[in-house]
Amino acid sequence: MRFEVTILGSSSATPIYNRNPTSQALNVNERVYLIDCGEGTQQQMLRFDVKPGKIDHIFISHLHGDHYLGLIGLLSSMHLNGRKKPMKLFGPPDLIKIINVHFEYSWTNLNYEIEFYPTQTKRPETILDNNDLTVETIILNHRIPCTGFVFRQKKPLLKLDAHQLENYQVPRNQFFKLKQGADFISEQGKIVSNDLLTIKPDDPKSYAYCSDTLANDSYLPQIQKVDLLYHEATFLNDLLIRAQETHHTTALQAGEIAQKANVKKLLIGHFSARYKTLDDLLNEARSVFLNTDLAIEGKTYVV
Amino acid sequence: MRFEVTILGSSSATPIYNRNPTSQALNVNERVYLIDCGEGTQQQMLRFDVKPGKIDHIFISHLHGDHYLGLIGLLSSMHLNGRKKPMKLFGPPDLIKIINVHFEYSWTNLNYEIEFYPTQTKRPETILDNNDLTVETIILNHRIPCTGFVFRQKKPLLKLDAHQLENYQVPRNQFFKLKQGADFISEQGKIVSNDLLTIKPDDPKSYAYCSDTLANDSYLPQIQKVDLLYHEATFLNDLLIRAQETHHTTALQAGEIAQKANVKKLLIGHFSARYKTLDDLLNEARSVFLNTDLAIEGKTYVV
Repeated sequence: MRFEVTILGSSSATPIYNRNPTSQALNVNERVYLIDCGEGTQQQMLRFDVKPGKIDHIFISHLHGDHYLGLIGLLSSMHLNGRKKPMKLFGPPDLIKIINVHFEYSWTNLNYEIEFYPTQTKRPETILDNNDLTVETIILNHRIPCTGFVFRQKKPLLKLDAHQLENYQVPRNQFFKLKQGADFISEQGKIVSNDLLTIKPDDPKSYAYCSDTLANDSYLPQIQKVDLLYHEATFLNDLLIRAQETHHTTALQAGEIAQKANVKKLLIGHFSARYKTLDDLLNEARSVFLNTDLAIEGKTYVV
Repeated sequence: MRFEVTILGSSSATPIYNRNPTSQALNVNERVYLIDCGEGTQQQMLRFDVKPGKIDHIFISHLHGDHYLGLIGLLSSMHLNGRKKPMKLFGPPDLIKIINVHFEYSWTNLNYEIEFYPTQTKRPETILDNNDLTVETIILNHRIPCTGFVFRQKKPLLKLDAHQLENYQVPRNQFFKLKQGADFISEQGKIVSNDLLTIKPDDPKSYAYCSDTLANDSYLPQIQKVDLLYHEATFLNDLLIRAQETHHTTALQAGEIAQKANVKKLLIGHFSARYKTLDDLLNEARSVFLNTDLAIEGKTYVV
């Protein structure tokens, strides 16, 4: 089952050096979950071939412009391109007011429905649970209310062992039960244990997205042991004071968070406009947590 | 005196084929007047080296997203980059409400002032008159209230004829009076006619911007004889009915408008996403009005 994230924007507040404001496309089993939507996201989607028609869920972490100013344009384009199916939108309560103001003054009646699910920052909660995954919020510590999101794959069905199915002459109508873990009982009443007939699938994977936060331990429980952690790393650690003042994280701190949370891999992004090249940020994070990569626009990372 | 327009966006409603939503940077004597500001305008400014610090005036024609959704991001970036000087903003009355909603929910106090000048669509009016130019609105015919803008250069000062100044031994402290048209009176009381000492400058130029409108004669008086007319040409004329339904103009009609208004040159833009290449639109407009060009992003057109 596909579970991978494509970076559409990696810049912090302002676009620069061909880096765009934050957005990511998480592809889970050919459904795309869009995470944040900075200005120019629809242009980046065209550039990196992310199909708007595959998106039924959009998650906005907070109401700073570099995380949502591309949303109205994207929703408008979907409308103009004939979208009919509803869009599920998750974000701070005031997000829907912003959207309504725009469509009110442009006299636009969308020809599809926006189903809005407001997020809150009192405590983490599960905001989505479908066939493929669950999504939980992470309460982050930013200048305005801000949540991250953890996407956890559902435990996949067992895989069938074709060779053994033939050996034990299992009829087709039993296949789905086997995938769910049932033993096979033949017409003669003979019981064949499930583990003889199936192959254990990969463990379900998890992806945590931490945008714009002061680094601290409060959200470690939510991201514990995830397979891939995206964490902002706006500054190098020589600007730790600036990071604290602006409620952001340094690359060193992102590495420490990854280590403490015992995650498998770390991806850093939300790079300040002061850094033309990003190697120093990468090296600083790696000095604490070796399995770190830079979030590079257009690159896809398998969770 | 520099008077030229750089195209930042040439697409209609949706970005496509590397074409971005509408925006233009009009450089008049090294001050940049930004006209409309679709999503991604700040990225296009970076790409084509239009300096935000040179912009003190922004004009928004109407509240369809493809004409203003880049504005909040641009204003935010100016704030983050330390802008202190005020920004003069001209647009429909509700524009300021949209801006305020964004900055309210992102808890942003801009460190510079926005001076907002609401436009109206009852009748054309002069909305700006400074040393370099006047700006008048054009009442267009779109689905929602929409104005164009005419930028008219002030009559430039006369140029001095260095050779003649020496001949008549004109002292330096008389130069500015001569530029304004005064005759020179020597200490001996001898009068030297101004036209002997100065060279006639070029005639003042004018640029008219007509975004998003049904083509008709109502606004011809406002754009009569301008040096350069930008006019939307969303469709080819085989889609005339679609153009009328959506309150847009075809390339043929844009050519007819240019001809009737007796302008010197026509620039067409706001191309529909259905046209991958633009030659047919250009040829159609040229079939009526030969001196037509396409608005190509990154290209600069001298008025």
